[in-house]
Amino acid sequence: MTEPIAIDRAFAERLFDELAARTGDAPGITRAAYGEGEQIAHDVISREAAALGLARHVDPAGNLYLTYEGRDPSLAAWVVGSHLDSVPHGGNFDGAAGVIAGLCAVRALVEAGIRPRRSITVMAIRAEESNWFPLSYLGSRAALGLLPEESLATPRSDTGVALAEHMRRLGLDPTRVGEGRVHLDPARIHGFIELHIEQGPVLEAADVPIGLVTGISGSFRYRRARILGEWGHSGAVPRGHRHDAVFALADLVTALDRLWGEVLAEGEGATVTFGEVGTDPALHGFSKVPGEVSFCLDVRSLSPACLDRIHAGLMEIVAGIEAARGVRFELGARTGSSPARLDAALRARLAGVAAARGAGHVEMASGAGHDTAVFANAGVPSALVFLRNQNGSHNPHEAIEMADFVVAADVIAHLLARDDNG
Amino acid sequence: MTEPIAIDRAFAERLFDELAARTGDAPGITRAAYGEGEQIAHDVISREAAALGLARHVDPAGNLYLTYEGRDPSLAAWVVGSHLDSVPHGGNFDGAAGVIAGLCAVRALVEAGIRPRRSITVMAIRAEESNWFPLSYLGSRAALGLLPEESLATPRSDTGVALAEHMRRLGLDPTRVGEGRVHLDPARIHGFIELHIEQGPVLEAADVPIGLVTGISGSFRYRRARILGEWGHSGAVPRGHRHDAVFALADLVTALDRLWGEVLAEGEGATVTFGEVGTDPALHGFSKVPGEVSFCLDVRSLSPACLDRIHAGLMEIVAGIEAARGVRFELGARTGSSPARLDAALRARLAGVAAARGAGHVEMASGAGHDTAVFANAGVPSALVFLRNQNGSHNPHEAIEMADFVVAADVIAHLLARDDNG
Repeated sequence: MTEPIAIDRAFAERLFDELAARTGDAPGITRAAYGEGEQIAHDVISREAAALGLARHVDPAGNLYLTYEGRDPSLAAWVVGSHLDSVPHGGNFDGAAGVIAGLCAVRALVEAGIRPRRSITVMAIRAEESNWFPLSYLGSRAALGLLPEESLATPRSDTGVALAEHMRRLGLDPTRVGEGRVHLDPARIHGFIELHIEQGPVLEAADVPIGLVTGISGSFRYRRARILGEWGHSGAVPRGHRHDAVFALADLVTALDRLWGEVLAEGEGATVTFGEVGTDPALHGFSKVPGEVSFCLDVRSLSPACLDRIHAGLMEIVAGIEAARGVRFELGARTGSSPARLDAALRARLAGVAAARGAGHVEMASGAGHDTAVFANAGVPSALVFLRNQNGSHNPHEAIEMADFVVAADVIAHLLARDDNG
Repeated sequence: MTEPIAIDRAFAERLFDELAARTGDAPGITRAAYGEGEQIAHDVISREAAALGLARHVDPAGNLYLTYEGRDPSLAAWVVGSHLDSVPHGGNFDGAAGVIAGLCAVRALVEAGIRPRRSITVMAIRAEESNWFPLSYLGSRAALGLLPEESLATPRSDTGVALAEHMRRLGLDPTRVGEGRVHLDPARIHGFIELHIEQGPVLEAADVPIGLVTGISGSFRYRRARILGEWGHSGAVPRGHRHDAVFALADLVTALDRLWGEVLAEGEGATVTFGEVGTDPALHGFSKVPGEVSFCLDVRSLSPACLDRIHAGLMEIVAGIEAARGVRFELGARTGSSPARLDAALRARLAGVAAARGAGHVEMASGAGHDTAVFANAGVPSALVFLRNQNGSHNPHEAIEMADFVVAADVIAHLLARDDNG
């Protein structure tokens, strides 16, 4: 005898409120990867899972697994989750919404007296926000044994302390992470489902609560690039004698803007962002021709060919500016990630459940990277569900409507409840 | 019975070396306006003037006057000088070279047993570098009673302490400065002569030690301008939804670069510099569309009409970018200074002495501002003598050849020695 599946909105609100209160860092919240705020969030989720009677497990990299055992534990399991870290002074929902949605879905099944055939694991992933460690998908790659050993020496951007040491401070086991052991075997995962706030304006503009994501952009990045010109007096050095780093940067931004426009006009999706630029306050002055400027560049696209094309364009543009202005670019290390195509069959099943539940949805691409990409690229049938949100993300004003959250968690819960999914 | 006039190179070197040693602030030197380094320099110069037997006087704003009395003290006097402050981590010669040149010239006359008809005052001017207080020509304007009272409330950029309080800490009298009393009566000045390093590459390129300056650029400045856009996720916000402050800044720099090129092509001299640009490290991130960027702008020209034209162009460009990108400019307060035309007759006399002394020289404009502009605009016949220098200025690598310095001081000494100058 089972009850209807119903997401408990008050329960979700209580968890969001507790996270906001305990990881607040005005303006916004801060849950540093392998830091205090992230650990608080893990502790809160773990405590709630214990109250539900879920089995709890932590892997050597600190990812948290909360399992509702199915009627046939020999079957490959569902994994539903997202990350619990945030950017500094970020919003309360980026990442956490996906973990809480998973917990709410399982809780709805438990309370309804429904025990599906397959086990369901709610996964709280470490360190997805790469501003802390300049590594993409740190936690999920570690879970799948895909994190290179040398990554453990990476210092955290705020503390300067190495990743391995941060892990040790939390009682974790970086040595085992470095050995590349597979904690989560892709063959034992029936499907991976991540709910995440959209972080963009598309669902708001389309007036629907849910986006079913077709693919996740890959990227190339230069996080610590510099242009070196020549310092001079702003009044005394004539135009023809200048090697102005800021004018060179403006040339670069303007030229990449033009290339970006051309790429979009041809129907390719891509984004181009210079998120950080600046002359050095220790050296610059309003009456100095700037001899140096630093910047970072983040280019994303669903298409590897498009990333290659923009990168080739960048190299040409840089060479042209160096020749024209007598400056030198130091781009530094190139980092990035591969695009991921998500599972069409799983997406179709989610669409079917959404339709049956009356949940409005659209298909869309994700320009932002998500842990789902790691599972998809490891061969796990994977789905990413976007939740409509307001005011973007990675900022203190990020917001969601709880009614939308309930709709999304309800769709996930009903999918997990089905025993007809192979 | 008189000896030949001879500049004592070893004396000058000793003074430069002492200043460098006592105001060193690696890299380079720092002599903050109304700060420790500037005061040390004043004390060194005052001590040397006392040793020469010059009369010493300090005005309420802290400008220092060292007078070699002429045979007829009723005649209007020569004033020869420059400033003793520097930019942070600047070079040893910007400013100080002019004061030391004046002292060397007077010393050469004293040692040669020459006492000209007119008195000669070596002037050490306060606070010429406007990075400390965002005010042009602070010290020389105060000497001429031209500093507005409200300027005394201006906080110093590094300490946040008001100018008046900095004056009081040095035992000076800001109240009298604020009353606008004229300490130095333009009618009592026969001529003002400033030697200053060129700070640019023109004399080096022309291979001559001395530049005789025809005019000093005026300027308009926006020291604390901002562009406000909208923060967003670098992957999640499509191009058409962005209000990217850094792209807007690049538009501005590129458009002003084009306008600058047009102005120069028409034969007008001007410089355009964005000396400081930057996103806020407390808010920015490599994965954020930047919602804000700050910058400062310094535009200089000898021609008021040219400044007006570039300013009008700036306003049009800003309006266009605001409309195109949905961003908002906050330019903040406009500051600046008026261009100054220097005295042709005095320049011709200097040229004559230079020719007689075999000192190579060219005529040139000054893109940088100098205290000479204040004297010229107050009606004092004024001359600015540029000294060839290497590695620009406002940086630790600024350099001069002492042989060039001796040539320049020699020309000034021989001019001052002449009694036929009306």
